[in-house]
Amino acid sequence: MIKIGILGVGTVGASVAKILEENADIIEARAGKKIVVKLGVVQNLSKDRGVSIKLSDNPLDVVNDPEIDIVVELMGGVEEPYALVKKALENGKAVVTANKALLAYHRYELQAIAGDIPLMYEASTAGGIPIIGALRNGLSANHINSIQGIMNGTCNYMLTKMINEGALYDDILKESQELGYAEADPTFDVGGFDASHKLLILASIAYGLDAKPEDILIEGIEKITQTDVAFAKEFGYEIKQLGIAKKVGDGVELRVHATMIPQESMIAKVDGVMNAVTVVGDRVGETMYYGPGAGGDATASAVISDIIDIVRGNQGPMLGYKRGLESGLKLLPKEDIVTQYYLRVEVDDQSGVLAAITSILGKFDISIEAMLQKPTKNDAIAKLLFTTHTCKESKMQDAIIALGKLDVIHGEIAMIRIEK
Amino acid sequence: MIKIGILGVGTVGASVAKILEENADIIEARAGKKIVVKLGVVQNLSKDRGVSIKLSDNPLDVVNDPEIDIVVELMGGVEEPYALVKKALENGKAVVTANKALLAYHRYELQAIAGDIPLMYEASTAGGIPIIGALRNGLSANHINSIQGIMNGTCNYMLTKMINEGALYDDILKESQELGYAEADPTFDVGGFDASHKLLILASIAYGLDAKPEDILIEGIEKITQTDVAFAKEFGYEIKQLGIAKKVGDGVELRVHATMIPQESMIAKVDGVMNAVTVVGDRVGETMYYGPGAGGDATASAVISDIIDIVRGNQGPMLGYKRGLESGLKLLPKEDIVTQYYLRVEVDDQSGVLAAITSILGKFDISIEAMLQKPTKNDAIAKLLFTTHTCKESKMQDAIIALGKLDVIHGEIAMIRIEK
Repeated sequence: MIKIGILGVGTVGASVAKILEENADIIEARAGKKIVVKLGVVQNLSKDRGVSIKLSDNPLDVVNDPEIDIVVELMGGVEEPYALVKKALENGKAVVTANKALLAYHRYELQAIAGDIPLMYEASTAGGIPIIGALRNGLSANHINSIQGIMNGTCNYMLTKMINEGALYDDILKESQELGYAEADPTFDVGGFDASHKLLILASIAYGLDAKPEDILIEGIEKITQTDVAFAKEFGYEIKQLGIAKKVGDGVELRVHATMIPQESMIAKVDGVMNAVTVVGDRVGETMYYGPGAGGDATASAVISDIIDIVRGNQGPMLGYKRGLESGLKLLPKEDIVTQYYLRVEVDDQSGVLAAITSILGKFDISIEAMLQKPTKNDAIAKLLFTTHTCKESKMQDAIIALGKLDVIHGEIAMIRIEK
Repeated sequence: MIKIGILGVGTVGASVAKILEENADIIEARAGKKIVVKLGVVQNLSKDRGVSIKLSDNPLDVVNDPEIDIVVELMGGVEEPYALVKKALENGKAVVTANKALLAYHRYELQAIAGDIPLMYEASTAGGIPIIGALRNGLSANHINSIQGIMNGTCNYMLTKMINEGALYDDILKESQELGYAEADPTFDVGGFDASHKLLILASIAYGLDAKPEDILIEGIEKITQTDVAFAKEFGYEIKQLGIAKKVGDGVELRVHATMIPQESMIAKVDGVMNAVTVVGDRVGETMYYGPGAGGDATASAVISDIIDIVRGNQGPMLGYKRGLESGLKLLPKEDIVTQYYLRVEVDDQSGVLAAITSILGKFDISIEAMLQKPTKNDAIAKLLFTTHTCKESKMQDAIIALGKLDVIHGEIAMIRIEK
């Protein structure tokens, strides 16, 4: 019999306890051993968790219990779980965590501390989708060319509503908050930070890259309007909030941002709260993994798959490389990213404006690929929407600053990157 | 250093040898050991394989070589590889196979012979897609409600062309043969037999079911016409050749056939030669796995991922259950399958015909859901296309026989099953 301790019995923790009990038949048959929860740890013992497991409010009751074989960390936060997971590993206990923030900041320290003790984290990225296993084991023969992931259900739900139903950003954010898809402060989701944690985890497995959220380009979906949506439709794009990792020479681009992608690509077809990750390997080509990225039961499904793997005696090298960082690839500075761009500017509706804009773009070696001019409610102002050929991020940023100084341009210049 | 022997150096075997050499950097970093091919076995030594590995024409040179750690079986066929894999396992060698036919017939005997020796087969099903790992490890906490797979690229390529470009079956079969997507005798692919082998493998992992191809319902795509395609479009369906496993009570339906599925489902969006498998778990909900189902490099990617897993010391229980057949589920006899149906019949264009048809259907408790009548080139003959509400397969089969006896019905009655 294997005994589990759960740090944090919230929605996911309660699902883990419930599924271990309700699916005990199949779990025991697959793992070869009975798996039971010995203790769960919560902050507030008086709150009903809807589960019958024994509870404590002291995490050390789990971490230091010699009878507990596997510690499941579902607390959230970074430094407190880090200290506890470290202690558990030092006590020789296997650890399963769903905590993406913990891994975004401490995955390499934890790998070093864990050594040969299993530390698994399937649930940390894209919820119920077994993308960690796919990338670490299933695609291990490949150099990974690129990863593109819809890894935040809130963003995808909102963008789907904006695209399919013409919803306005503010309205759909409010609706998402009412449905429980978005937090009262939605920044962590809509600002791209949540997805960045997951991207960093995948980038470690794919590329052996040690980077932190602060090191990479992270933007959100807050500035997307129906004008952008209409343009995208007209030019054959969907707009998705993507986490992107891409190998370029011996560098790796890591970035999270709203992206125009061709409507016919598989990941463009992923709607609503669902998540999906496309991985292109140098040998296998394109593969995609689709499923629920959140939810108590879906996340618990991933947590328990890790527990079963540990009981079976399986474990990958935690971050995919048996011998540490081996790929020799480096994080590409964000200024050096090369991609295509969509720009939206409001301009005086007068002759010479376009010439002024293209002249500035030309100075930064940026050329226009396609353009659309739309009227606004104000006769004197037009919207200019255009896409560029590939150029360097730093030049685009400089061009946007230079364009902003033109008298004929009004308000903020909106930009969405394009991936083909 | 780990030494590999390859039985069968055809397209996939050559790719395995090439990738092990060309991607040696990343493979060694991920496996923790150098992996080299010691010997390949071919039937004809004089044929150039385009690889630099040492070759023999005697499979025992691999199977009995004490220096070889892992035997990779890529011969095809059933009984010869069975004998060799058995021998290799008895000699204590780990085995990796891509041979779906071998597993469709002998997977349970092989599991018993293997015991604790790794026998892995990621490449046997859906080529480069790591679906075996996903189902065996990633979704192990779930009772599996259903599996729907596009597991034959030839069929999907042909159906995509028929649907998107209006191609006729015979024309597109010829084109597929010219492109090398279909064999000179295409029956194994277009008749559903290839997919049935893969379905049986997945059903073992999901349900612990021991069944052989002869035991299950297998139909092909040969009878699909542009009339069916047009009907499907009008009623919101795509037509896909699917392998389906579905839990119904304590029974499991296993079947391979052309299927009308809602256009908005994710698997309906998978076009061309690509494969995809949707798995619905009782806890995780719907997940999908998409990628190339064939091709030397894609299949070799899966083969090598198994080799790396073995070198890492990982292995699942071969067929997902640590303690053998444990689910207690039984194969549902094909007559007991319950689903919806689409029927196409050619009838005399005269009054009373519809009444005669509905009267017969009624006798078998079958009711019509939607109907469409189309003229033919012959004024006296009309095409009647309709879908039914759910009914039992045996009743539908009997109804088709009874309908066939009506004087007003001409030619064969075509039937496509519907899954919603």
